[in-house]
Amino acid sequence: MILHNSLSVVKIGGNIVDNPEALTGFLNDFHQLKGRKLLVHGGGVMASKMAERLGIKTKMVEGRRVTDAETLQLVTMVYAGWINKSIVAALQKIGCNAIGLSGVDANCIPSERRNPEPIDFGFVGDPITWKMDGKLLSTFIENDVIPVFCAITHDGNGSLLNTNADTVASSLAVALSKHYRTTLYYCFEKEGVLRDINDKNSLIPLINREAFIQLKGQGVIADGMIPKLDNSFNAIQEGVSEVVILHARNLLKKTGTRLIG
Amino acid sequence: MILHNSLSVVKIGGNIVDNPEALTGFLNDFHQLKGRKLLVHGGGVMASKMAERLGIKTKMVEGRRVTDAETLQLVTMVYAGWINKSIVAALQKIGCNAIGLSGVDANCIPSERRNPEPIDFGFVGDPITWKMDGKLLSTFIENDVIPVFCAITHDGNGSLLNTNADTVASSLAVALSKHYRTTLYYCFEKEGVLRDINDKNSLIPLINREAFIQLKGQGVIADGMIPKLDNSFNAIQEGVSEVVILHARNLLKKTGTRLIG
Repeated sequence: MILHNSLSVVKIGGNIVDNPEALTGFLNDFHQLKGRKLLVHGGGVMASKMAERLGIKTKMVEGRRVTDAETLQLVTMVYAGWINKSIVAALQKIGCNAIGLSGVDANCIPSERRNPEPIDFGFVGDPITWKMDGKLLSTFIENDVIPVFCAITHDGNGSLLNTNADTVASSLAVALSKHYRTTLYYCFEKEGVLRDINDKNSLIPLINREAFIQLKGQGVIADGMIPKLDNSFNAIQEGVSEVVILHARNLLKKTGTRLIG
Repeated sequence: MILHNSLSVVKIGGNIVDNPEALTGFLNDFHQLKGRKLLVHGGGVMASKMAERLGIKTKMVEGRRVTDAETLQLVTMVYAGWINKSIVAALQKIGCNAIGLSGVDANCIPSERRNPEPIDFGFVGDPITWKMDGKLLSTFIENDVIPVFCAITHDGNGSLLNTNADTVASSLAVALSKHYRTTLYYCFEKEGVLRDINDKNSLIPLINREAFIQLKGQGVIADGMIPKLDNSFNAIQEGVSEVVILHARNLLKKTGTRLIG
C-alpha cells in the first residue's frame, strides 16, 4: 500500500508543559507546523506539585512510581483536566481547531493493566496497539480537527489507567501509520541523543537499529534514553517511518537525532 | 424544515454524579435509552470536596460562587478530568462508545465571560448559542459516538470558563435542534416540579409558558426552580421541542414534568 499523505505525531514532555513561556512558544510552533498533525502531552511535573498540595505521597517500587487509586484520580485530574483543556484553549486562541482527548474517549487507545507480577505498579497500563484502527482520528485529521492527547487510557472494564506519554505517542503513531506516512517527534529539553551528555554540540544526527545496538553496548546511550529509543525502534518496526528526538524549540527546523529502521 | 430524527439531550446533576451506586444505575439507563443521545454532567459536589482538601476557600458574592483562577483550575480538573473520564470509562465498559468533551474541544461551545459589572464572578461564562452549529456533534451522533460533556467552556481567547451545566445542556439542545427534533431531559433528585415541595405526589405533569407565569406568580415555582424553568422555556423558544424535568431513576419511563411551548 502506498500512503500518499504524511502525518506528524508530536509528543511534548512535562518540563515544557510546566513552563508557561516555553509552552506558548511551542504551541505557536506546533500550529505553524505544516501538514497533518497530532499532539501528545506529558504533565508529570505539574502532577508532582499537585500531589504535594494534596498530601499524596509518591510511592516508589524499584525506582518507579506506583499509581494507587488516589494517584490515578490525581493524574486524571491534572493530565485530562487542567493540562489538556488549557492546551486546547491556547491552541483555539491561535486558530488551531484542537480537540482534547484521552485514550478512553471513543476507545481511541484500548489498553491493558500491567501485570501485577512481579511488581504491582497499580493503575498503570499499556496500549494494545493491534486493537487501534485510527479511523476516527484520521477522520478528525482530514477535517482539520487536531487531536491533542493526554496519557490516560483505560482497560475497557471501567478502570482508567495511567500510561507513559511516550508510549501513548508511539502507539498512536503506529496505529496511524496504517493511514499515513508517519513521523514521530519526541520533543524534550535536550538537543537529541548526545555522544557526551555534557556537550550539546555532540549531537548524533542519525541512528539506525544497528548503530543503536552498538551505542548501547559502548554505554553512549544509557539510562532514560534507552527506553525512549527502544520505544522508537519498536514503533519503526511496526510501521512508523521515522522518529526524531529533538529540543522542543527546534520543532520547525526538525533538527535533532533522526532514528530510522 | 422537517426534522425526521429525534435526539435526547440528557443532563445529570452533581448529586447523582457523586453517588457511585446511583451513577452506575443511571449510566445503565442512559445506555438503554433508545435513539440518538448526548449526555451533560455536573459535578459541583465533588468539586466542593476537592476544594476543601486543597484549602481553596469558596468565595461567595450575593449568594453565588466566584470562580477565581485557583477555582477555575480546580473545577477543570474535577469536571473535565476525573468526572468526565470516569463516566466515559464506565460507559465504554457497558458497550456505549462515549467520547468525553468540554466546550473547548473543537470549539463545540464558544462562550463569553460574564460581564464583570455590577458583580465580577470571575472566570464564569455563558455559551454563545448562535455561534454553535452542532455539525461535528451530529457527525459523532450519526456514527454512534455518544458525546459526554462537562460544563467547562472557553472564551476563544485562551481562557477556560466555568459554566452552569444546565446552561451547557440547553445550549447544546438548541444548537442540535437545527439537526434533530430535540428533547432536553434535566435529571435530578426530585420527581419534577412539585406543587408542594414536601409532597412528592404533588407532581405537575405538564406546564406550558402561560402556566409557568401563573405558577411563578402564585409562588408555587420558586427559588432554584425558577432559573431552571426560565432556561427551559428559553430553549423551547429557540427550537427545542420539549424539556422534561425528572428524577434520574425515571429516565427510561420519562415520567416527570413536561415543559412545552
